[in-house]
Amino acid sequence: MTDDNPLFRGGIKPINLGLETFHRALKDQGVDAVHVDWRPPSAALALLAQLDNAAIDAANQDCVRKVIDSMPVLVDIRRASEAVPGMEKNVILHAGPPVTWERMCGPVRGAVMGALIYEGLAKTPEDAAVLAASGKIRFDSCHHHSTVGPMAGVVSHSMYVFDVLNDGFGNHGFCTLNEGLGKVLRFGAFGPDVIKRLRWMEEVLAPGLKKAVLSSGGINVRNLTAQALQMGDECHNRNVAATNLLIKELTPHLLATDLDKSTIADIFKFMAGNVHFYLNLSMAACKAATDTMLGAKGTTLVCTMARNGTEIGIRLAAMPDRWFTAPSGMPVGLFFPGFTQADANPDLGDSTVSEVAGIGGFAMASAPAIVQFVGGHPEDAVRYTREMFEICAARHSHYKMPTLDFAGTPVGVDVRKVVETGITPIINTGIAHREPGVGQVGAGLLNAPMSMFEEALKALAAV
Amino acid sequence: MTDDNPLFRGGIKPINLGLETFHRALKDQGVDAVHVDWRPPSAALALLAQLDNAAIDAANQDCVRKVIDSMPVLVDIRRASEAVPGMEKNVILHAGPPVTWERMCGPVRGAVMGALIYEGLAKTPEDAAVLAASGKIRFDSCHHHSTVGPMAGVVSHSMYVFDVLNDGFGNHGFCTLNEGLGKVLRFGAFGPDVIKRLRWMEEVLAPGLKKAVLSSGGINVRNLTAQALQMGDECHNRNVAATNLLIKELTPHLLATDLDKSTIADIFKFMAGNVHFYLNLSMAACKAATDTMLGAKGTTLVCTMARNGTEIGIRLAAMPDRWFTAPSGMPVGLFFPGFTQADANPDLGDSTVSEVAGIGGFAMASAPAIVQFVGGHPEDAVRYTREMFEICAARHSHYKMPTLDFAGTPVGVDVRKVVETGITPIINTGIAHREPGVGQVGAGLLNAPMSMFEEALKALAAV
Repeated sequence: MTDDNPLFRGGIKPINLGLETFHRALKDQGVDAVHVDWRPPSAALALLAQLDNAAIDAANQDCVRKVIDSMPVLVDIRRASEAVPGMEKNVILHAGPPVTWERMCGPVRGAVMGALIYEGLAKTPEDAAVLAASGKIRFDSCHHHSTVGPMAGVVSHSMYVFDVLNDGFGNHGFCTLNEGLGKVLRFGAFGPDVIKRLRWMEEVLAPGLKKAVLSSGGINVRNLTAQALQMGDECHNRNVAATNLLIKELTPHLLATDLDKSTIADIFKFMAGNVHFYLNLSMAACKAATDTMLGAKGTTLVCTMARNGTEIGIRLAAMPDRWFTAPSGMPVGLFFPGFTQADANPDLGDSTVSEVAGIGGFAMASAPAIVQFVGGHPEDAVRYTREMFEICAARHSHYKMPTLDFAGTPVGVDVRKVVETGITPIINTGIAHREPGVGQVGAGLLNAPMSMFEEALKALAAV
Repeated sequence: MTDDNPLFRGGIKPINLGLETFHRALKDQGVDAVHVDWRPPSAALALLAQLDNAAIDAANQDCVRKVIDSMPVLVDIRRASEAVPGMEKNVILHAGPPVTWERMCGPVRGAVMGALIYEGLAKTPEDAAVLAASGKIRFDSCHHHSTVGPMAGVVSHSMYVFDVLNDGFGNHGFCTLNEGLGKVLRFGAFGPDVIKRLRWMEEVLAPGLKKAVLSSGGINVRNLTAQALQMGDECHNRNVAATNLLIKELTPHLLATDLDKSTIADIFKFMAGNVHFYLNLSMAACKAATDTMLGAKGTTLVCTMARNGTEIGIRLAAMPDRWFTAPSGMPVGLFFPGFTQADANPDLGDSTVSEVAGIGGFAMASAPAIVQFVGGHPEDAVRYTREMFEICAARHSHYKMPTLDFAGTPVGVDVRKVVETGITPIINTGIAHREPGVGQVGAGLLNAPMSMFEEALKALAAV
């Protein structure tokens, strides 16, 4: 090995295989190293050979086609007690897989306490915590009730929900109305301002919008999402354009109601003042679309992915009664002034129904400006979408991305492909404070953990 | 030359230099040819050596900085007769450089005839044409009156205009309110529906919006444009997001006026039903910003670029009293059903004030979805913006493009760079039917002709 060896004339660089943290440590010390994104193949990989992959491919195509063909329409805004199946007075729904009060994370506990106060079942946060722990409250996953909820995802029986009909399929998806950012119930806050806002939403916002929605004869949510994807939104963490489009649809109908101008102005300003107002409607639509997969035999597609802040869980279209779970990961992102990564609660919320339906993180190529909210660079946004093509069964026919020459978004996560490629779904998410009562502290990104997908594949191979 | 010569092992391909039509002819015959985008250097190139380029660079930076620092604010909606300087009863303003009735193209003639009917100066299109030719009507370029107009750009004294104040500079820019697409005055239509709509705009829309604007205390147009560039608009031929943002700003103020709900609903629906409603406001803002360049000594920047459908003209910041003109080019694009390229009028309108101000075609990288309206592929949109960087003095500090990692848009066309690179400004534009009375038939793209820039450079070198 001499200086004359042409191999070494350009200087020697270390190559780092696998863990990126080692690469970052080298870079921090000024070493110019090459990183290779490599992972040891999954132990579950061998199971793939045991499957009838041709039959599965065909079944997956039928299954994902139903998601793509879904036509979610906002048909009403109703009280959860009337709309949501099994919504008794003592029932509290939450995001993610089922979890007991004892194992609930801070922000979900905070939201439960707030909901019990809001429902008049408790007077103080302390009373609420005692009641929640008493066994008198029945907790259940939103997903078991055709419902989804962002972050804590807490739904109690007096709250109003968007009622989205999947036209042509007949199933419904439900989600509460978005409260705004910062100190809000879904991020675990429960102070007097939070309860007051929920009360106004129940008494003014929801009944007013209900009139507008009924007068509209139904608002096509798929159409709004498709437009918003041409306007820099991915409809999970960026809903700027979609919210404006929804407002544009609703306002003429609001003006046609018997509401007075000042009430209409209050409702308008509430929607216009929250760039995420569309999110909850989109989630209800995604729930209605992805629930068409429930019970699709012979498939390997994920029909649900959701987090309760303690665990993340997936359900398979082929065995929807079973949750495959793993500890919730930790999103890395950008924090509001005064907060840091140390304040962050682990990954939380049903909003990953967006990714399961082919938008959100999967459609980030359409939303380069989102990196200002969740971190990273615009080219990362495109890379995430390209990676998701690797693990999905199809491209969406209605959701197109201009930056990728109008390619359809990746849709239909196939656990076989996840295990084969080592790529798990990208999630972009809000970040709650880990303590009850605080609220949102930032937004960021993470990948779902691999182990759930390996467990799911094992279960499929065992059938 | 044998088969063994390694140069020829990959097969021989023709290389086409210059005219792309020759390359296309080869491709049409199945020949795999390489095209080199080459032009003979301009004869005016030698003039560059005669200039004090360092002093010009400094003067250009000062000049373009004023455009960038401009803060256009919508402060009022007023009658042209009250707001626009020199707007007598017998004055008709039009887009582009000055042009006589005899030389006016079809759509400008049509719009003039419509305006004369609208003003009650003529009863029929035939009467209007006679009056227009009589010498009793004084025609002038909008640009001479702090005003711009899309397409025909016809402004008559009863019409209302957006009054945009350039806050901090004190100058104003004016533009009429956008009528919508299809059969409208600015595309040369003048039928009873056109006049009826103009009347409604005068009697209901403009006075209503005026109240809202006054109640708002001023709407920051620069802010709206900056947001829209993050949402897939380039604010010339795509104004989808910007229109919604404007509606969002105006509606709470509309609701605070004494107007009844049904009038507010009519105004709301008119704005919401026209994805280009924002265009005219944006143009007034661009006019206010680019007029800060007027009279900037020692510069080589273009302060005006506009077309009257017969000629396209530019004015230089350093000599704003002189138009350098060339025949209007022919946009190539997409046509509405039933129309073809043969129906197209040559390039028309003041809307190129957008490009002069650093948006429109120059910001196309922000608006990949626009290719569905003007033709081409999303990668072309990015290429156009990159090319414009080559001929501009600066990047805009407020107008950022997410797809280019939040780079500022190119702004400040430097005639030296145009001549040096052989690249002329890209324009994306609506296309009018060539006959009066028809209206819009499509939208497309073209580059401004080189000869105007060569003439302008000669004039600068002669000073």
